[in-house]
Amino acid sequence: MHIAILTFPGFNELDSLIALHVLNRVGNRDWRITLCCPDESVASRNGVVVRAQSRIHEATTADVVLVGSGTMTRDIVKDPRIMSALHLDPSKQLIGSQCSGALVLAKLGLLAGVPACTDLTTKPWVQEAGVEVLDRPFFARGNVATAGGCLASQYLAAWVIARTEGMDAVRAALDYVAPVGERSEYVERAIRNITPYLPTSAPESP
Amino acid sequence: MHIAILTFPGFNELDSLIALHVLNRVGNRDWRITLCCPDESVASRNGVVVRAQSRIHEATTADVVLVGSGTMTRDIVKDPRIMSALHLDPSKQLIGSQCSGALVLAKLGLLAGVPACTDLTTKPWVQEAGVEVLDRPFFARGNVATAGGCLASQYLAAWVIARTEGMDAVRAALDYVAPVGERSEYVERAIRNITPYLPTSAPESP
Repeated sequence: MHIAILTFPGFNELDSLIALHVLNRVGNRDWRITLCCPDESVASRNGVVVRAQSRIHEATTADVVLVGSGTMTRDIVKDPRIMSALHLDPSKQLIGSQCSGALVLAKLGLLAGVPACTDLTTKPWVQEAGVEVLDRPFFARGNVATAGGCLASQYLAAWVIARTEGMDAVRAALDYVAPVGERSEYVERAIRNITPYLPTSAPESP
Repeated sequence: MHIAILTFPGFNELDSLIALHVLNRVGNRDWRITLCCPDESVASRNGVVVRAQSRIHEATTADVVLVGSGTMTRDIVKDPRIMSALHLDPSKQLIGSQCSGALVLAKLGLLAGVPACTDLTTKPWVQEAGVEVLDRPFFARGNVATAGGCLASQYLAAWVIARTEGMDAVRAALDYVAPVGERSEYVERAIRNITPYLPTSAPESP
């Protein structure tokens, strides 16, 4: 299974890397989790340069696509090189966005009639694109999820894990990354945030 | 002010980059916040390659040094090239560690008589180095702080901000990165975690 985390120039380190790290905690050797970039390397909003682990055209065939956030998303959605490469299909893929990543999903038509979560800065732009913005950290309908506020990316990752591996795997992954002494608080809050949006047919933990 | 975040091969993305991002939220143009590495680039435990923004010898003159965590810390503390370059001085620097970074501080003699926080995997190694390990996310004595559990790196960053800019800046930085709808929960918990360890002479917010 390929999980592509779309990471553009000006990216927000938390939004791409919290998801990447939490998903890697599952430790499933059949998972390939990549920073998926338009170029060989990209610089974050704070000058952190990371090397692409997959390229943007690979998002089309990925099983899961998470759209990261950043300071340049309004330029990204006007860039035909990027947008024309993103053939995403929620009938075959799990698709999620973090903060301004919601603008990418909106422009791709993936939020038609679906409310979304995003950050305060992006909120008016997503609304402009005709999407209702919710005052909560996480929302999903079917195979499309959105999260708002950098640290909500742990919920986005948890949703992907719940949809693919089940809730025991969510607990195990979040248990490890939570602050010592606050594990149950972090795990239970994440589960509370994603549970209403899981289909009843979500895989049961073995 | 230079804040050097020591980031070694095999690094934990959360431990280096949550701190980097939260500190950058302060938006102080006089701050230089860098991933400080032994080489020109380093690969994380999950294959994320980042470019160094400063080199290890610069930690000696940094105002703040945060030691990140990773899968290779037990090798790092045996590497004379790295350890001999780390002349840290808590009388002149704020020094903090995240998870296995505590092992580096212990080996440098910076935790003599000071209990520490770390992750569950690192705990026995830090204990072996003669340091008491606490079952909590954050602890500081004077200018040396330790945090345990990846997401506790938000508390380590908050402590640095509290010690340098004051509590209003902590609130503003965490308020932005917290999940939408959970801002006060995240901000208040962080403040609760760091407040007992702030000197009464910590800078008051203007």
